[in-house]
Amino acid sequence: MQLESPVSVQWIADFIGARLFGNPDQMATGINEIHKVQPGDISFVDFEKYYSKCLNSAATIIIINKEVEVPAGKTVLVCDDPFSAYVSLVKHFKPFERATQLISSTAVIGEGTIIQPGAFIGNHVHIGSNCLIHANVSIYDGCIIGNHVIIHSGTVLGADAFYFKRRKDRAVQYDKLESCGRVIIKDDVEIGALCTIDKGVSGDTIIGQGSKLDNHIQVGHGTIIGRNCLIASHVGIAGKTTLEDEVILWGQVGVNKDLTIGKGAVVYAQSGVPASIEGGKTYFGSPVVEAREKMKELGWIRRIPILWERVMGEK
Amino acid sequence: MQLESPVSVQWIADFIGARLFGNPDQMATGINEIHKVQPGDISFVDFEKYYSKCLNSAATIIIINKEVEVPAGKTVLVCDDPFSAYVSLVKHFKPFERATQLISSTAVIGEGTIIQPGAFIGNHVHIGSNCLIHANVSIYDGCIIGNHVIIHSGTVLGADAFYFKRRKDRAVQYDKLESCGRVIIKDDVEIGALCTIDKGVSGDTIIGQGSKLDNHIQVGHGTIIGRNCLIASHVGIAGKTTLEDEVILWGQVGVNKDLTIGKGAVVYAQSGVPASIEGGKTYFGSPVVEAREKMKELGWIRRIPILWERVMGEK
Amino acid sequence: MQLESPVSVQWIADFIGARLFGNPDQMATGINEIHKVQPGDISFVDFEKYYSKCLNSAATIIIINKEVEVPAGKTVLVCDDPFSAYVSLVKHFKPFERATQLISSTAVIGEGTIIQPGAFIGNHVHIGSNCLIHANVSIYDGCIIGNHVIIHSGTVLGADAFYFKRRKDRAVQYDKLESCGRVIIKDDVEIGALCTIDKGVSGDTIIGQGSKLDNHIQVGHGTIIGRNCLIASHVGIAGKTTLEDEVILWGQVGVNKDLTIGKGAVVYAQSGVPASIEGGKTYFGSPVVEAREKMKELGWIRRIPILWERVMGEK
Repeated sequence: MQLESPVSVQWIADFIGARLFGNPDQMATGINEIHKVQPGDISFVDFEKYYSKCLNSAATIIIINKEVEVPAGKTVLVCDDPFSAYVSLVKHFKPFERATQLISSTAVIGEGTIIQPGAFIGNHVHIGSNCLIHANVSIYDGCIIGNHVIIHSGTVLGADAFYFKRRKDRAVQYDKLESCGRVIIKDDVEIGALCTIDKGVSGDTIIGQGSKLDNHIQVGHGTIIGRNCLIASHVGIAGKTTLEDEVILWGQVGVNKDLTIGKGAVVYAQSGVPASIEGGKTYFGSPVVEAREKMKELGWIRRIPILWERVMGEK
Repeated sequence: MQLESPVSVQWIADFIGARLFGNPDQMATGINEIHKVQPGDISFVDFEKYYSKCLNSAATIIIINKEVEVPAGKTVLVCDDPFSAYVSLVKHFKPFERATQLISSTAVIGEGTIIQPGAFIGNHVHIGSNCLIHANVSIYDGCIIGNHVIIHSGTVLGADAFYFKRRKDRAVQYDKLESCGRVIIKDDVEIGALCTIDKGVSGDTIIGQGSKLDNHIQVGHGTIIGRNCLIASHVGIAGKTTLEDEVILWGQVGVNKDLTIGKGAVVYAQSGVPASIEGGKTYFGSPVVEAREKMKELGWIRRIPILWERVMGEK
Repeated sequence: MQLESPVSVQWIADFIGARLFGNPDQMATGINEIHKVQPGDISFVDFEKYYSKCLNSAATIIIINKEVEVPAGKTVLVCDDPFSAYVSLVKHFKPFERATQLISSTAVIGEGTIIQPGAFIGNHVHIGSNCLIHANVSIYDGCIIGNHVIIHSGTVLGADAFYFKRRKDRAVQYDKLESCGRVIIKDDVEIGALCTIDKGVSGDTIIGQGSKLDNHIQVGHGTIIGRNCLIASHVGIAGKTTLEDEVILWGQVGVNKDLTIGKGAVVYAQSGVPASIEGGKTYFGSPVVEAREKMKELGWIRRIPILWERVMGEK
């Protein structure tokens, strides 16, 4: 996320109790996890194996748990627990704002848009024109919705990312990475009933123009769905995944995190996608293979008894 | 759906900008997609391969994109885009009615029925006697609910059919078929929390008497579920499918569209039903086969290493 | 469940129209189904094969459909339909209480807890301190929630157990076992959006301290989830199952009823768990086996064509 106004790194260092190395006059303009960083951003790293990736990323200010050589033009903030330091910054710059009414007075709602009874529209939500938000929808703070969007009842936009750091030495082991990203729904999208589109950890979860989602669909934090995708009910898509344009996922498909499904790919019902798959092809199975390969495989399995009889001389 | 009063075909032709062939004095009494037509209905067809089916159906008025021979007693309305013409008629005769309060003043609610806080009851909804509608349920306009029905929190009845025509030459490719059908819940049905029962495209989605649905279930548009069916959580049933009486579906089963599951069939958890299956049997697998066949198949797979060793002389 | 004050067995016998055998001065202190009984409890049995289990259980008062020898110190209540008798007692001692406002005046809500708009908090609900209950959550009567708990929008706590007795000779075949148990959410739990945690039939459904649930998760009646479990979206867990501490279930996993998943077990996405599995291991498949066995199995299936060619001399 971008900060509302630049903040000095010295202030940041004092706030999180870190030692500052590098340029003390640096100004921070954003806070982002490593997957989304740009110049001016604060980011953090606490695993040695990712030190180099983070120090060489676009991030300008790095919170880290070891004294390291400071890359040119960057500022390094050293503290014992970069994860908690990062979370405390997110909480400070993006505090939870309690709502006191179903439609926040800071929400901006376009002309011709209908909000049905019982829908919750959080603070700083922007909804375009000619949208239809059905009863009992919940839209968390800061979501951005385009024009001609339809959202059916019970759907939840902008719930927190499901993202935890495990600390096995504590009684309560899972430590939450507070999310400060947004959900962006582009024009002409229709989202069915009882779907969940989680906000990004620090970036945006995006549903591309003209995509249509059926009911009971989960879209994880930071996932980007292209234009004109068609997604059937009970599909679950984990975080930070990309669906290129015109992807079709049939019912109950599961898609892993951090992968890409290529343009125009079609995935048959109940399939599981563990890793990136190319566009323009049709897939089936869990784990998926091309659908025609899966069909052949099912045929081979049916032939095992014939093989058995030939080899073993018995049924 | 039935029209509130008959409408002349000449009015229809003028409204959609079509050329009229056949009987100009014909009156239309209903609008239905091809799967649900009856005499007096307007229907549409835009694929040459379905021309004959539609022209020979029970529909009396056919909107079509080619000049054809007019079947006896019928009226044919020729225009470039029958799909859009049909959608414009649905929107005209069944316009969306904005709600201004949680329980519509046009809803009819029977004696002894309890509506818990936060539930939305749309326009023209009928609910029978001694029902219990839990908090935050959403019931769209026009749904019909019998007596002694229990609906748990968050469930959504009557959301739009997930039915689109793809137009690959447009920037926004999926063109929505506006649905005007209803949801009908018969007596003694219990529906769990966070289920979705979509309305039919033009006909009814029906849950038969005494059927019990667990949580997170999806029932697609126009699907008909018989009496005394038992459906476990996370089951997804696509559109226009039929479950005969006493069908049992265990958790996370997926059922394709346009098929029939015979009376008393039992389908084990996580199975996928791609095509019609006979009643009175037990099924497992994705795609399903009879459960005992699936069990045998799993046994055969476990024997492949034995075969390999015998044939290849190595493990 | 415990009764608010002890009730004489003679009153119970009269209320349900049963003949009393054994100690007529016995006082009942609770009502429980057979899986949860303790001394002082009323329970019921109507299948001959479970007579002995029920008569020898901790229950003090047994409703049964046959005259039997009365175990020492117990009271036996004989009637034609113990199931209906039990249900009538549950309804009498735990009647449904209609709610008239979104937050019941009998709910107890701790300091620092935020309830967002549209959330329903039923009668006698207890919520601890510093919790965050998001918009449009539904919490049924009697649920108990600890401290530092976060519940995301649309989630439903405490809906009825999905538990029916089938009576094939009736028009409406499924007869509901009224549930009177509770849902208990321990400290530091986070539950995602659109989850369902059903109440126990007579005991408690428990989510252990520090466990984190993603979206669209179903937890059945009486299921007990340990500490620090991590459950991804669309997971369905049936009733009366136990997850020991630190279990991880990935997306769309299905878990059968009446089983135990051992401490620290990890189950990969889309797997199905039909029976108990040991802790400390990683599983995959439907039905699950250890993940490395499943991977080997997938490899063996890919080798069938090689075997076929060798044995049959053709591709």
